[in-house]
Amino acid sequence: MNKKIAVLSGDGIGPEVIAQAIKVLDAVAQKFNHTFEYTNALAGAIAIDKTGNPMPDETLQVCLEADAILFGAIGDPKFDNDPNAKVRPEQGLLKIRKEMGLFCNIRPVTTYDSLISKSPLKEERIKGADLVVYRELTGGIYFGEKGRKNDGVVAFDNCEYSVEEIERISKLAFEAAQTRRKKLTLVDKANVLETSRLWRDVVKKMAPSYADVEVDFLFVDNAAMQMIVKPTQFDVILTENMFGDIISDEASVITGSLGLLASASIGAKTAMFEPCHGSYPQAAGKNIANPAATILSAAMMLDYFKLFEEANLVREAVQDSIDKGLSTVDVNPENPQSTSAVGDLIAAYIAKAAVTV
Amino acid sequence: MNKKIAVLSGDGIGPEVIAQAIKVLDAVAQKFNHTFEYTNALAGAIAIDKTGNPMPDETLQVCLEADAILFGAIGDPKFDNDPNAKVRPEQGLLKIRKEMGLFCNIRPVTTYDSLISKSPLKEERIKGADLVVYRELTGGIYFGEKGRKNDGVVAFDNCEYSVEEIERISKLAFEAAQTRRKKLTLVDKANVLETSRLWRDVVKKMAPSYADVEVDFLFVDNAAMQMIVKPTQFDVILTENMFGDIISDEASVITGSLGLLASASIGAKTAMFEPCHGSYPQAAGKNIANPAATILSAAMMLDYFKLFEEANLVREAVQDSIDKGLSTVDVNPENPQSTSAVGDLIAAYIAKAAVTV
Ligand SMILES: [Mg+2]
Ligand SMILES: [Mg+2]
Repeated sequence: MNKKIAVLSGDGIGPEVIAQAIKVLDAVAQKFNHTFEYTNALAGAIAIDKTGNPMPDETLQVCLEADAILFGAIGDPKFDNDPNAKVRPEQGLLKIRKEMGLFCNIRPVTTYDSLISKSPLKEERIKGADLVVYRELTGGIYFGEKGRKNDGVVAFDNCEYSVEEIERISKLAFEAAQTRRKKLTLVDKANVLETSRLWRDVVKKMAPSYADVEVDFLFVDNAAMQMIVKPTQFDVILTENMFGDIISDEASVITGSLGLLASASIGAKTAMFEPCHGSYPQAAGKNIANPAATILSAAMMLDYFKLFEEANLVREAVQDSIDKGLSTVDVNPENPQSTSAVGDLIAAYIAKAAVTV
Repeated sequence: MNKKIAVLSGDGIGPEVIAQAIKVLDAVAQKFNHTFEYTNALAGAIAIDKTGNPMPDETLQVCLEADAILFGAIGDPKFDNDPNAKVRPEQGLLKIRKEMGLFCNIRPVTTYDSLISKSPLKEERIKGADLVVYRELTGGIYFGEKGRKNDGVVAFDNCEYSVEEIERISKLAFEAAQTRRKKLTLVDKANVLETSRLWRDVVKKMAPSYADVEVDFLFVDNAAMQMIVKPTQFDVILTENMFGDIISDEASVITGSLGLLASASIGAKTAMFEPCHGSYPQAAGKNIANPAATILSAAMMLDYFKLFEEANLVREAVQDSIDKGLSTVDVNPENPQSTSAVGDLIAAYIAKAAVTV
């Protein structure tokens, strides 16, 4: 198989962790006789520094011509506390999601038995938690009309959702629930927000077509509590953009293995794969960041290419390295491996695996 | 001192826990020679059932004529899953906040050493956590223009904030920080939302007038993580309405003592005091609900009346009952006391206390 992959390493630790994912993809290509063609492109603060634009047109063009996008991380603290900066790294992320139509963000949260001791939650609360958040990614308040009025003393942000926007992601979430534990939880604020009431209307209308899936509804404030109190109750969580941002980030810390969490963002024509962690600027260039999330994101990309055997081998290799404690300082502070060493180990596991091609 | 108190017991366990708070206030009145005059009024689902309105005008009138409002809880599950219900109990809560101008919701989250074992978080994460959330309560997306358009296939909710709305709550939050550990964290989403950027502008402009307070800024998704990862980092959290709803509810479960959390909602002319827990309909009428949060809310009301000695005695009485394990089933499942028994014990503690009047 021949696939073109756009590589957007971005800022902070992005380039380091992306390098390991490519190392692993190369091992897969070698082993299974595929060709992966990589094209690097600028995104984020580094793109602002070099072009003034966090998501240059050249980058979007590279992405449009690729079969999938492998993304590192973007963001630089020099922009965070300046409310008047007109250009921000995060705009690049919003722009690529919008331009590529990546309407569905998927974030699996799995607990690793060997890492449960790292969880901030008590073991009995977190053990066995296995959920996935389906977050709408191109609508809602983040993309709504926004501005100032009354001579600047009033600011506004508008949240909007259409039936069509809700239906297309709900379909993916229902289908995912069918392959999992058959439970779908819609997180909303239907007691207050009209957009949330539209989400409930649509999901309730679709539910009979997925009769094997149990559907329930949870207000976002309650969901923020339940994620701590009883995370094992969740299977597939479906929600709008901003609630998904908050709830999936909250979910990402309960397992104690943030460095291991992968994500996919699916559009009608392409898809983007990226680790859940941010650009972690304090660790940039130190060869200490955990590459596992990016490598597992690459595995989700292999799934997207329907290379299921390859994807599973990558996950097996990552699991093996964790089980053996061959991991970075966040997971194994006593005897840490470097970022590149973890990449080498996982690539070597793949190279040595007994696989029939 | 003579004070008029509007009593809105509401739904579910509301009437039971309010009865205990009044028992305790009566003990305080007796002991310290005050007169508290109570006027009951309808609110919530029970008000819908009786009048068709979750917050009848008569109730608002009672509140306007009172010095403070003691509130139970509202909400009934029969309304939750009906997105087309035009009248909802929660509208009553939104309406009283708006009508009384209760713009500032204050929720202290304290850890009790004897209850840390109930926390879903590991002891080393939660021990010593002591924070208070200042949530804007009458603006933002919950009160913005909302509706459907394009023949109903598009729904919208508008979020709006003015400089004045942000300043008046920020002032209270800064002043609170000055009496505490002198740290204020603004929670927003300033990398994406224009309203959040206005919040940052205003808070940054006010900060020099409170030079002894350290100010920092946290995106709401990150705040949802930090509340689990390191809750002890927070002192005063200041935030807008919806973020405050989510973050303060999340904060309410980390200590494992939700039944103990009190709240105050402050307006220019009056204030309302209510437990953080909801109407808990499953427990209604069973005499098992924990009245401590409502009693501690009554203590916040005494503070509001500047009856500080009285307020502290109520808190001491509650602390004593917890230390002795004389509490309801949520706190002491092995040997639970009933709701009314806890009220009796706390009232008796006050009656017996050695206090110079
Ligand atoms: Mg986020
Ligand atoms: Mg709430």
